[in-house]
Amino acid sequence: MAEITNQNNSLSDEQISEINSLRENSNTTIRPVAEGIEKILYQVFPVLDHGFIRVVDYMGDDQAVVQAARVSYGKGTTRVSEDRGLIRYLMRHRHSTPFEMCEIKLHVKLPMFIARQWIRHRTASINEYSARYSVLDKEFYIPNTKDLAVQSKSNRQGRGEVLSKNDSKEALEMLKRDAEKCFETYEYLLNEKSNGDIIDKNRDGLARELARINLTLNTYTQWYWKTNLHNLMNFIYLRADSHAQYEIRAYANIIYEIMKAWVPITAEAFNSYRSGSVELSSEAMSVIKLMIAGNKIDQKSSGLSLREWNELMHNLDK
Amino acid sequence: MAEITNQNNSLSDEQISEINSLRENSNTTIRPVAEGIEKILYQVFPVLDHGFIRVVDYMGDDQAVVQAARVSYGKGTTRVSEDRGLIRYLMRHRHSTPFEMCEIKLHVKLPMFIARQWIRHRTASINEYSARYSVLDKEFYIPNTKDLAVQSKSNRQGRGEVLSKNDSKEALEMLKRDAEKCFETYEYLLNEKSNGDIIDKNRDGLARELARINLTLNTYTQWYWKTNLHNLMNFIYLRADSHAQYEIRAYANIIYEIMKAWVPITAEAFNSYRSGSVELSSEAMSVIKLMIAGNKIDQKSSGLSLREWNELMHNLDK
Amino acid sequence: MAEITNQNNSLSDEQISEINSLRENSNTTIRPVAEGIEKILYQVFPVLDHGFIRVVDYMGDDQAVVQAARVSYGKGTTRVSEDRGLIRYLMRHRHSTPFEMCEIKLHVKLPMFIARQWIRHRTASINEYSARYSVLDKEFYIPNTKDLAVQSKSNRQGRGEVLSKNDSKEALEMLKRDAEKCFETYEYLLNEKSNGDIIDKNRDGLARELARINLTLNTYTQWYWKTNLHNLMNFIYLRADSHAQYEIRAYANIIYEIMKAWVPITAEAFNSYRSGSVELSSEAMSVIKLMIAGNKIDQKSSGLSLREWNELMHNLDK
Amino acid sequence: MAEITNQNNSLSDEQISEINSLRENSNTTIRPVAEGIEKILYQVFPVLDHGFIRVVDYMGDDQAVVQAARVSYGKGTTRVSEDRGLIRYLMRHRHSTPFEMCEIKLHVKLPMFIARQWIRHRTASINEYSARYSVLDKEFYIPNTKDLAVQSKSNRQGRGEVLSKNDSKEALEMLKRDAEKCFETYEYLLNEKSNGDIIDKNRDGLARELARINLTLNTYTQWYWKTNLHNLMNFIYLRADSHAQYEIRAYANIIYEIMKAWVPITAEAFNSYRSGSVELSSEAMSVIKLMIAGNKIDQKSSGLSLREWNELMHNLDK
Repeated sequence: MAEITNQNNSLSDEQISEINSLRENSNTTIRPVAEGIEKILYQVFPVLDHGFIRVVDYMGDDQAVVQAARVSYGKGTTRVSEDRGLIRYLMRHRHSTPFEMCEIKLHVKLPMFIARQWIRHRTASINEYSARYSVLDKEFYIPNTKDLAVQSKSNRQGRGEVLSKNDSKEALEMLKRDAEKCFETYEYLLNEKSNGDIIDKNRDGLARELARINLTLNTYTQWYWKTNLHNLMNFIYLRADSHAQYEIRAYANIIYEIMKAWVPITAEAFNSYRSGSVELSSEAMSVIKLMIAGNKIDQKSSGLSLREWNELMHNLDK
Repeated sequence: MAEITNQNNSLSDEQISEINSLRENSNTTIRPVAEGIEKILYQVFPVLDHGFIRVVDYMGDDQAVVQAARVSYGKGTTRVSEDRGLIRYLMRHRHSTPFEMCEIKLHVKLPMFIARQWIRHRTASINEYSARYSVLDKEFYIPNTKDLAVQSKSNRQGRGEVLSKNDSKEALEMLKRDAEKCFETYEYLLNEKSNGDIIDKNRDGLARELARINLTLNTYTQWYWKTNLHNLMNFIYLRADSHAQYEIRAYANIIYEIMKAWVPITAEAFNSYRSGSVELSSEAMSVIKLMIAGNKIDQKSSGLSLREWNELMHNLDK
Repeated sequence: MAEITNQNNSLSDEQISEINSLRENSNTTIRPVAEGIEKILYQVFPVLDHGFIRVVDYMGDDQAVVQAARVSYGKGTTRVSEDRGLIRYLMRHRHSTPFEMCEIKLHVKLPMFIARQWIRHRTASINEYSARYSVLDKEFYIPNTKDLAVQSKSNRQGRGEVLSKNDSKEALEMLKRDAEKCFETYEYLLNEKSNGDIIDKNRDGLARELARINLTLNTYTQWYWKTNLHNLMNFIYLRADSHAQYEIRAYANIIYEIMKAWVPITAEAFNSYRSGSVELSSEAMSVIKLMIAGNKIDQKSSGLSLREWNELMHNLDK
Repeated sequence: MAEITNQNNSLSDEQISEINSLRENSNTTIRPVAEGIEKILYQVFPVLDHGFIRVVDYMGDDQAVVQAARVSYGKGTTRVSEDRGLIRYLMRHRHSTPFEMCEIKLHVKLPMFIARQWIRHRTASINEYSARYSVLDKEFYIPNTKDLAVQSKSNRQGRGEVLSKNDSKEALEMLKRDAEKCFETYEYLLNEKSNGDIIDKNRDGLARELARINLTLNTYTQWYWKTNLHNLMNFIYLRADSHAQYEIRAYANIIYEIMKAWVPITAEAFNSYRSGSVELSSEAMSVIKLMIAGNKIDQKSSGLSLREWNELMHNLDK
């Protein structure tokens, strides 16, 4: 099994060795085991410049969805095709409770401005690294040049074109400068370096819970995050969407890959009926029926608002 | 490992063989394994006359609580005494999120009047056997003579003395008679026996979702129930309490035994600080301070209401 | 303002007078008031043979959705057309949190088998009339002849044709007979009539929490149920659907009428984008695009399963 | 009725006039009205240097708790003493569902590091001002000198003594300097002042969702926050506690005052049985019984750990 990598230097040597020792430790269980996710357990998936996602534990597999839907005594059917049909049926008809029967626990390192979006998903359990209790690492998110976009003209909460070369160079320097300056002040106020060294033995340090208020929102934090498969799919649906902020999308895309390794049949059904699906209003369906019947319809004759018409055309184009 | 038993005849031979085949199936995992609960996984713990509880899956152990509280990269400390201290600290100060990091899934067979109490615990996932879709088994809860209590005089929602021998004999006969009669009608309306036999080929059966409305509340149902360790402790705290109805207490007591096998350190801390603890109002604490200082206090001089005084005396006596 | 009616005799005279006295009591508030729902506050909407729904309180209106979406200091815009556009936008894009800002509290009387479906909606607050504490009324649901359907052949959890005249007459008699017999036993075991009369002064009554287990599932219970507008729409979406059991649909339909009186703009948007909408899989969208382009497609050439094809044709027909 | 004040300059003139216009608008309702909270509705309670809390709406009062506990048709009893007794009983025995029947909606302005603690209370609805969509105000929290404490020696997540005069002067200057510098960069990157002025017409602004990552954690944000009375009490219990960070305690204390104005009887019961109560472990209770019996006990003979002994002594002293 592959050793973990550390592509974005988000881990210390000690942390890597802790993780590798967990991965060497093989146990016997009579619980169901999902082969795909066992292969990636504890591994570090790098995200952004210093972030990561690690699967720390999981419960259940595709079979567990079937078993719960049937309230069965054993494994349920052994015919995979029937199980697949049932899972697709459950997904299509939004019978969500059997998907709640699977659970996953992730260890995530992420910038605080992403953490503030992430935590809006309320049906999850979280333990975050405490900056009241411990000193944070000196790590902050600085975007890649290609991700430095101007404010979108058409979408008030989105991004437009990439910034000009000069502007983006300047922007990155400013972001780096301010984050570093703030972190330096943080350490000075604490009278303690992030590595634990005391700066000046004759001075008192400010309480950690106060000193941290000087940090910028791109400072990294980390947490254990546990949720069930149903809520995981909601997270992916909303956060891997093209309207989500690029930085949280980077996390959601990796979580989707993890989901595919864990519950491949559910992931396939999710792809058909949720992430790839289109919801059409009763008005839009009427337009579609007319089109199928051979009528030429434009926005005006459709009765749809311009915005809804554009959304419908977009769905028929993609 | 012991074969499962079937003391209260709640399972068919086929179900027993399904369960035993699961128990023989040993898998390899790099996840943490909780030895105590592995030993009882899938087994049938009989409850009441036809009910049971089975652990179907679990995630995490005592270590997982520690690991989440520390947001650690590996297993955390290897010194058990430190882990125990931390778990006791978390329990004492009601830091509940680390306990949410463990999850358990149970398969439960229970009378419907108990199911209606159980489901009031909202933070859980449930898949119930559908009586719209399938025909129920002919099984209903009939209490033991010793559990047939009269309405309590002092507690409007509790039980008092046991019924007289004659009265209880009559009560049991009536309960049995009515449940059987209702079930017979249910089968007649369905035009189908609970074993699947059609009663009369020339007659249509009533829809299942309608026929079931004739069943009595002591009819057994079953479900998969999944919750986290924090909510499991809330369940045990409320339902193993002496004020809970005897029948749900029978389930809660077994769940407490399961918890002890699963997370022994957490169970010990729960016993110290939650199930065995006493919550005293500011007024009651004032009385206790006076008592410790050597004052003689009675209800009148205590300033407590009669009810609160009695509750305090009860706590000091037990 | 109209006096409340009591069409299905679900209320005592005393209860009607309590309700009327509430309705005569006019208060002054600086909170927003939703005129439509004020008119029906406290009134009894009869459902089924003995059930009802009453709005007991509410918080917020269409404006409150807009105000929260804008995190505004005052009322927000006074231009109704802008508010309507924003509400439709929020609904279309499933931005659900602003809808959570409105809250409604209902008093519902319903048969227990419906209560067991209803309570599966977990994000709500409930206080149910306690049969451990009090004696239930002698009221049980007996369907109308026209609602006595046979088990559906095509849908394992649905209803098919109506039962023959003879069969339904017999079924109703049996349902009535068993419910009455069980209730009679219940009173006998309690040694107390539902009106509070003691039956035999020389005999002890069985504890209420035990006697009730003899009741049939069509016995009426009642509860206070409080939820927010977002979850109310989920309830209506699932329970007013044609696949929901007829009896809970009867409740959901009335709740939808209440919603229309309360938040008319939100109700209109809900009608366009949720209750009347169709969700199409990526595969189904491909088929539709081919159809619009003038291709003749049948199930075989569509690549859809028979079941999915039928569902798509159903959506294009209705 | 008093005009709203603006002691900490957290509002613009326009906002004050919006709020005052709401307060002048009196409506008629047949819903219950809680007099105490009507008086403070919409008003601005200043918190910290630029924050505030405003009650935007509420549902229910003390009576609503009683009404739900009794599942009553009308107002319930008119005897206040009985209602008070019932509310105290519900609080003492942690029957929490009737308290869920009251709801409150607040508009809160708070620094982001506080928002990150606050949002850990998951059972609430939130709409936050979007910094993806809009430009934030130039306001950040700078502590008062008296609140600048050194890291506690005894409590790893708390505060100790106040910083020396020189050190605190320096600390405040650094906090102010960094926050201002970061905000200046934020505006420069946006190419837009927080008042909406464009800085340089020939330059593109960075997307808002990116520029904000440069802000410090003491920058103010605001949200609508809605929760029920049960969860409000949990919030107050945890956040008005002496172990909570001073800055969130400042908010929790005001919310407690609001609660007293809203539901005075519930607030009194909360004070007796929750906020002022002490939870004693079974071991601590044994020690107390020995003390009442006249025994001299010290830590060693108590069998308690040093930490638990100190906690017990603290509870007996206060």
